[in-house]
Amino acid sequence: MAFRTIGLVGRQDHPLVADTLSRLLQLLAAHGLDIRVESGTAAYLGSAGMLGAHGGTDAGLDAALDDLGACRLDRAALAQSCDLVIVVGGDGSILGAARELAASRVPVLGINRGSLGFLADISPDELEPRVAAVLKGAFRLDERFLLRAELYQDGALVSGGVALNDVVIHAGASSKMMDLRLCIDGEFVYSQRSDGLIVCSPTGSTAYALSAGGPIMHPTLDAICVVPMFPHTLTSRPLVVSGQCELVIELLGGRELQPRVSCDSQLEWQARGGDQVRICKAEGALHLLHPLEHSFYESCRSKLDWGTRLGDRRNQ
Amino acid sequence: MAFRTIGLVGRQDHPLVADTLSRLLQLLAAHGLDIRVESGTAAYLGSAGMLGAHGGTDAGLDAALDDLGACRLDRAALAQSCDLVIVVGGDGSILGAARELAASRVPVLGINRGSLGFLADISPDELEPRVAAVLKGAFRLDERFLLRAELYQDGALVSGGVALNDVVIHAGASSKMMDLRLCIDGEFVYSQRSDGLIVCSPTGSTAYALSAGGPIMHPTLDAICVVPMFPHTLTSRPLVVSGQCELVIELLGGRELQPRVSCDSQLEWQARGGDQVRICKAEGALHLLHPLEHSFYESCRSKLDWGTRLGDRRNQ
Amino acid sequence: MAFRTIGLVGRQDHPLVADTLSRLLQLLAAHGLDIRVESGTAAYLGSAGMLGAHGGTDAGLDAALDDLGACRLDRAALAQSCDLVIVVGGDGSILGAARELAASRVPVLGINRGSLGFLADISPDELEPRVAAVLKGAFRLDERFLLRAELYQDGALVSGGVALNDVVIHAGASSKMMDLRLCIDGEFVYSQRSDGLIVCSPTGSTAYALSAGGPIMHPTLDAICVVPMFPHTLTSRPLVVSGQCELVIELLGGRELQPRVSCDSQLEWQARGGDQVRICKAEGALHLLHPLEHSFYESCRSKLDWGTRLGDRRNQ
Amino acid sequence: MAFRTIGLVGRQDHPLVADTLSRLLQLLAAHGLDIRVESGTAAYLGSAGMLGAHGGTDAGLDAALDDLGACRLDRAALAQSCDLVIVVGGDGSILGAARELAASRVPVLGINRGSLGFLADISPDELEPRVAAVLKGAFRLDERFLLRAELYQDGALVSGGVALNDVVIHAGASSKMMDLRLCIDGEFVYSQRSDGLIVCSPTGSTAYALSAGGPIMHPTLDAICVVPMFPHTLTSRPLVVSGQCELVIELLGGRELQPRVSCDSQLEWQARGGDQVRICKAEGALHLLHPLEHSFYESCRSKLDWGTRLGDRRNQ
Repeated sequence: MAFRTIGLVGRQDHPLVADTLSRLLQLLAAHGLDIRVESGTAAYLGSAGMLGAHGGTDAGLDAALDDLGACRLDRAALAQSCDLVIVVGGDGSILGAARELAASRVPVLGINRGSLGFLADISPDELEPRVAAVLKGAFRLDERFLLRAELYQDGALVSGGVALNDVVIHAGASSKMMDLRLCIDGEFVYSQRSDGLIVCSPTGSTAYALSAGGPIMHPTLDAICVVPMFPHTLTSRPLVVSGQCELVIELLGGRELQPRVSCDSQLEWQARGGDQVRICKAEGALHLLHPLEHSFYESCRSKLDWGTRLGDRRNQ
Repeated sequence: MAFRTIGLVGRQDHPLVADTLSRLLQLLAAHGLDIRVESGTAAYLGSAGMLGAHGGTDAGLDAALDDLGACRLDRAALAQSCDLVIVVGGDGSILGAARELAASRVPVLGINRGSLGFLADISPDELEPRVAAVLKGAFRLDERFLLRAELYQDGALVSGGVALNDVVIHAGASSKMMDLRLCIDGEFVYSQRSDGLIVCSPTGSTAYALSAGGPIMHPTLDAICVVPMFPHTLTSRPLVVSGQCELVIELLGGRELQPRVSCDSQLEWQARGGDQVRICKAEGALHLLHPLEHSFYESCRSKLDWGTRLGDRRNQ
Repeated sequence: MAFRTIGLVGRQDHPLVADTLSRLLQLLAAHGLDIRVESGTAAYLGSAGMLGAHGGTDAGLDAALDDLGACRLDRAALAQSCDLVIVVGGDGSILGAARELAASRVPVLGINRGSLGFLADISPDELEPRVAAVLKGAFRLDERFLLRAELYQDGALVSGGVALNDVVIHAGASSKMMDLRLCIDGEFVYSQRSDGLIVCSPTGSTAYALSAGGPIMHPTLDAICVVPMFPHTLTSRPLVVSGQCELVIELLGGRELQPRVSCDSQLEWQARGGDQVRICKAEGALHLLHPLEHSFYESCRSKLDWGTRLGDRRNQ
Repeated sequence: MAFRTIGLVGRQDHPLVADTLSRLLQLLAAHGLDIRVESGTAAYLGSAGMLGAHGGTDAGLDAALDDLGACRLDRAALAQSCDLVIVVGGDGSILGAARELAASRVPVLGINRGSLGFLADISPDELEPRVAAVLKGAFRLDERFLLRAELYQDGALVSGGVALNDVVIHAGASSKMMDLRLCIDGEFVYSQRSDGLIVCSPTGSTAYALSAGGPIMHPTLDAICVVPMFPHTLTSRPLVVSGQCELVIELLGGRELQPRVSCDSQLEWQARGGDQVRICKAEGALHLLHPLEHSFYESCRSKLDWGTRLGDRRNQ
């Protein structure tokens, strides 16, 4: 086995997730592996009846897990003690896990519940053979960098976090615009009036930034893309710079403005006019595992529907 | 019967078209209708063996058609003598027929061979019931205007034609650009350096113009859209004006330039620097029939794949 | 004189507006016209010291106005009693006035403070000759329709209003998306996951919708454009339909969702999942006056900067 | 002096170029530098009367140049013998020089005639101080990679060349489309029906690709961008991959098709259905010099007009 101690994390909102987690538990137990179930996930599994009649108590839950060679751990401990973490859910679940696991560089494997995602790309239909193959060492390692965003008020750091997909700076309300000033590596780039700005990694280039007109960047590219949101000029375009760059976005205007900064649409901070947002590559990286069959371009073809053609457009 | 004399026109390049035409002949004969087959289509049917053993002669062909209550006519005569023309082929076949039949306003029904089109929307699978329903008067009439394009050199008209989808003015070679000057109803709109200009009707808004970033216009809208092709400025945008407007595009630059003007990508003229192209709504209209079930928005949903969604883009 | 009783409305936030209003008062008084100053504008003028020393009381204000042949009226009364309303401000001021004056069809003339706008197109530099010309009847009348938006909850109308530019339906927060279902004239068009939807008039096509990728529509076009905001699919495109259409947008999802509906970014309502928004052309129209020199295309060229070209892009 | 032997190349179509070259000759002679004038440029200078009365003969020309400490050389020899080549013209002149000089890595300085370009960024107005500063060693070195394109027929290399901006594969006529199949590093990416494909370097991202909707890439980014031209699907998007990638574009369809391949719109080859185009980073690089004041973002702001804003779009 390529991995010995396996962590399990799952979305906690759907019976199918519980079912998939249960199948994973059986599979891992059958391989005689040490299993660590994230605490919330364990509780969800128990309440979904997937751990037998355990009386609904923590002791009962632990006993039921123990029968499978498993125990409970919180997320932080999971990152420390596991060789591999398997996440069951959508791309959103991977995003959450990525932010917690990137620093420890523990490898992550995603099992998708729902339509196949860009990140969680093993279908439950083929759970057992695909996971077994990965456990035996047959996988591709895909290293994805994260962005670190920091919010400064009056020069002091007031909030910070990481994002796998994107950092979005937004005016905060549908009927407002904001003015901002972008500098990259200390050089002034532009001032802009818009609804906001999306700063994305290659991983995020197929997410929100794509809807806003950004290019698709290959996951291995060392680059950051800046995409304006409904800019108040017709000449703004997505801008791709090196992944080594530091971006500073100054939020112009008075303190009455309430722009918002969000990481992967999961963390969100309230900012004010005059604040600064600094964005650069984060320490660490998500070590994402894929089955050997995985291909980024294949994901694009299937998920972005590249195969579909317009009809006889040119009348031939 | 809502129609008495039926014309038949088909693409002449595929056995499936011949097969569909043959089924149509049977159906129309069974309804006791007068059938007029376009000459080229009749010859193709004969050569494809769909009219029995007729000896390969014109006389044999006529005899075989006569057995079905049909006769041959050229396209011009078809327009004059029929109550309804049925076209078998793709949208391109309808475009060709439209240019010939619009002036006479004879209704046109399209049977699609290939993926369902925006214009030819009856599938061969359901040929008999759908055509029978239309013959009995159960149809929607969809009036589509055409554009008339005229090329002037030194003030003299040198070429003219009509287009159902679009008139495209193009620099003529991939490595060239052109300069042009657009006036609408005598008012100067802009000078532009670009690869060319697409002027489309609502019908054409789902064709080439769509690839160039133009909006979708509902077929009943009385409007013309002008879409620049790779303009040499970031501020050019598609422009939608009334269908009553007259557009004049002056091709700037010297006579050594060889821009091209095309109608529906089917007619094409060579122009020169200094020429003028005038575009306005053409006389007449294509009277396109659809089954009662037809819906333009449904065509958009299926052909433009409006149902396909990106994955959990926003990570929810 | 083409007009006898003139209303005056001004933005109340800048000394230059007060100065321009004061010059207008002098001009109108010199022509011996009846002047009605909107109450808030009169108070602002007084406080800005443009009406002499009037003691700061209403009586003093009235006396000062009376000296100029002017009196105060609230907005509703203004619409009833005037032949012409002159608005001093930016396009936003015209939008506000338009919503109040459209029903009465009283003509509106805009004096711009700031960069020349699409609606308020007389520059203060040339105030006197331009306004004098309009007063004498030398103007173009430009009729602009408005959109009426209505919000229905459980089938009951809960909010309603008009918009000259656009009705925007928005998820309400930067990190949320919404699902909606669009029907036009009772026909299903599409379901869409996105940040929201912009529905604009031709007048609004050069405003917010343009930033979102919509086409420019000539102001006289009888059409409505629907532009998706960051749609969760790559196949969504702006859609242009007849100005006679009725659009119904159903806000999908649970009541916990809080999408927002705004008219011209000036009125805003809170909606809930399950609500419906109905949009159609409003009664009445803005009767906008322009100097004879005015040209919509010229406004586009100067405001959208159509004259600027990229450099020698094609290397020639 | 940072440079000892200086080459001079100029566009040969405008008196202002001749004038600028003449000023350069004086400047370089005054600094006592060895001057090598490209043969065609020297002939143009002579015919423009910038080298005094030299009798129109080669000997006269050489004598006139000799007086300035200059001699004539062809382009290949120029690359071998100079420390620095100064190019007078537009970006197109730099493109031409870049293709010839990249292999030798001799530094290039561009003097612009016309609007300031992205590559040739010294204005003739400030020729003397700017060039003098560069000669003394006060410059920024900007290394720009080129793309190498090769056309294969039946597996055999039939044409090859380099491009600083872009390699464009085009259907070859305005009314035709082409089908192509893209592989990157041996992996299938997509099949596409379109008017063609633009493959650009970061340098080319502000040229033709920008008109086609591509992103702006910072010149130092090690990336290649692929931009489809009017693709026959709504889901195609610009794709950015590592500069280390090898792209293979297979031109589908029969031999009757005549797609064209061009490098920087300056070299052009005729291809056929079935051919393959291979594109990767070329050996060598353009060593472009800029004055210390130069900033890429400043070029974007001035050339792409990033400072221009729409009016009060959101009505505030």
